[in-house]
Amino acid sequence: MNDIIPLITDLKIKWHKLQSTIQKMNADACIITSNVNIYYLCGQIFSGYIYFPSEGDPLFFVKKSQELNPDFQTVFIRKPEDITEILKSKGIHHTNHILLEGDQISFNEYTRLQAVFNPDKTSNASDILRKLRMIKTPWEIEQFRYSAKKHAEVYAQIPFCYKEGITDLEFQANIELIMRNNGSIGIFRGFGSNMDIYMGSILSGENAGSISPFDFALGGEGTHPSLPVGANKTKLKPGTSVMVDMAGNYTAYITDMTRVFSIGKLPDEVYRAHQLSIDIQNRMIDEFKTGLSCADIYNFSLEMSEKAGFAKNFMGTRQQAKFVGHGVGIEINELPVLTARSKDALEPGMVFALEPKFVFPGVGAVGIENTFLVKDRELEKLTLFNEEIIELGVASDALLC
Amino acid sequence: MNDIIPLITDLKIKWHKLQSTIQKMNADACIITSNVNIYYLCGQIFSGYIYFPSEGDPLFFVKKSQELNPDFQTVFIRKPEDITEILKSKGIHHTNHILLEGDQISFNEYTRLQAVFNPDKTSNASDILRKLRMIKTPWEIEQFRYSAKKHAEVYAQIPFCYKEGITDLEFQANIELIMRNNGSIGIFRGFGSNMDIYMGSILSGENAGSISPFDFALGGEGTHPSLPVGANKTKLKPGTSVMVDMAGNYTAYITDMTRVFSIGKLPDEVYRAHQLSIDIQNRMIDEFKTGLSCADIYNFSLEMSEKAGFAKNFMGTRQQAKFVGHGVGIEINELPVLTARSKDALEPGMVFALEPKFVFPGVGAVGIENTFLVKDRELEKLTLFNEEIIELGVASDALLC
Repeated sequence: MNDIIPLITDLKIKWHKLQSTIQKMNADACIITSNVNIYYLCGQIFSGYIYFPSEGDPLFFVKKSQELNPDFQTVFIRKPEDITEILKSKGIHHTNHILLEGDQISFNEYTRLQAVFNPDKTSNASDILRKLRMIKTPWEIEQFRYSAKKHAEVYAQIPFCYKEGITDLEFQANIELIMRNNGSIGIFRGFGSNMDIYMGSILSGENAGSISPFDFALGGEGTHPSLPVGANKTKLKPGTSVMVDMAGNYTAYITDMTRVFSIGKLPDEVYRAHQLSIDIQNRMIDEFKTGLSCADIYNFSLEMSEKAGFAKNFMGTRQQAKFVGHGVGIEINELPVLTARSKDALEPGMVFALEPKFVFPGVGAVGIENTFLVKDRELEKLTLFNEEIIELGVASDALLC
Repeated sequence: MNDIIPLITDLKIKWHKLQSTIQKMNADACIITSNVNIYYLCGQIFSGYIYFPSEGDPLFFVKKSQELNPDFQTVFIRKPEDITEILKSKGIHHTNHILLEGDQISFNEYTRLQAVFNPDKTSNASDILRKLRMIKTPWEIEQFRYSAKKHAEVYAQIPFCYKEGITDLEFQANIELIMRNNGSIGIFRGFGSNMDIYMGSILSGENAGSISPFDFALGGEGTHPSLPVGANKTKLKPGTSVMVDMAGNYTAYITDMTRVFSIGKLPDEVYRAHQLSIDIQNRMIDEFKTGLSCADIYNFSLEMSEKAGFAKNFMGTRQQAKFVGHGVGIEINELPVLTARSKDALEPGMVFALEPKFVFPGVGAVGIENTFLVKDRELEKLTLFNEEIIELGVASDALLC
């Protein structure tokens, strides 16, 4: 078992970085209330607010009688309007410039907090927190390692989830059971309103090219118009691939790993495209040593796909995603994003997923996805698992790397 | 199979109600972009905006090349800023008063839309939509009936999910598999930021009294600090109850149903409290005929609990929920809310869950929850399933009503 409670020393790395930013922005305080950022900054979720002054310890204003870490300065409140009196009693009378989570809290929550603190100015804390969260702490990296290990252990059992004639959805439900029995937390957090999903995605056959309204790399029709993504009850049949992109949510830090299975053999070009995905990954690992930006990775992925004649299959067919990877963390779509327009370099402490994928109408999707930790001199692959296309319904040897 | 696509005539009931409200508020238009309200108003989810003028047909501005219902007036856009030009070409030059979803979209999304439309005034569309959604249409009621039927069929298989010595979480994972194989969509939507949950909740023993930061009737510690609600790996042991409150998410319209199982026999007072929950439900059904408000139901539930000596167990122990039921729909916490302070009466077309529950330290939680449709002259119980405490590990007869 990994240590699910962060040490206060690890939390203080984050607090210190946040307070430096508050100071740089000439702000007086940052108010955190979204579940994701509360979890990031204190290692547990509570209903309430963290008040981060530009200097000194944060105050934890808690709305329910939940016990927090005894190292925290906790104050119980009934509503946010109670905060002002408490701050006054601590000598804090007015705050000019406050940071609030503009991308994560609703307009009404935001304006209520504006009314409570009555500052001259507010700025966007969501942006700041997303940038801080991009560089992971030692404890966070341990969480990823644990998720990655469980992720691979569960994927090793995938061949046993298959029976001839089943649908993508039945196959997925069998995988979900194994995930849960291996400690999958269940939920799957994403940034923004277009990230609805349930436990991950299985795509097979024609469905791999279906357009989804959500912001994932690939789509899928889904089983219901209220959740149009992923499996759509396609029967798994010979000559089609089955792309498995189920969540690595075994801690709050999600690893992202895609592997491809097949029913019988696939057309030759499909195997070539799968190998191209592996080649793209290997080029990234090699070229990292000589310096690599996020845009470089997207650009050579697209270029290699064009050269191999797979441009029309790259990241979808009828609709093509304009990124080939993304940061991961408490949310599945953290920074950086590997797009042509990105200005980010790869920096030590980043954890990101690379997912060059190719869609073939009538066959399905191929390509791998792995999660990498950026270190000083190398990229460390965290998700270690056989990268070939694995045929289902055939006795398979050890799959774990 | 139920009809998962709403008829345009059913959608027009909703459009008409929304437009009447827009007119009553002297507003020019309402802009809808949250997944929940988009689904409500068009029966599918897309990435983009519905522009509802105070008169005439709505316009559907779609950001991805997803196909919508051909009955809709669809316009493809790249970003919300494109909308203004298109409106101008239709003769709409300025809108004075616009309704935006202030409780559902982020501060930054809201202010971006304000900049696009540049109105003199905005008001809260979230509030309006929540009130409209409170009264269900005929198609919506059919969706509930389908969810309720599947919900009961899945609950009938719960005794087979139990094996001596398993934990609440293993028991839950077995139920989840049956849910998925019976068409559970998986996700579980809630209004507000304090409604994180995965597929529902199983509470047994001491864990039934654990405080959660989320706004459900009961809590539970959960298995991880990033999702502190529900099962916490408690071993199911003799003399404890197992409360099952798993989602009825077999359509986008969620039914809510709680049933209680036991390992061996429970203390007498616990059976009495369970019977009290059934009595509260029956009193509500009886008294409905003579007129009943939401507050009445909460008040007599509390009063009956006090009289029976169970006030300290009612809706929790260390923390007690201040409601005894709530509307259900596309979200699990719709209007009305059954609290002491509610001003709502029960109106035909409402669908709500009543859940008088009692927590006994060391034993667990008891009480039932059912979903009701309010009709002209009676309350119709939608979730039909044996209401007694069912002993696990004992051969059981037919459980379906």
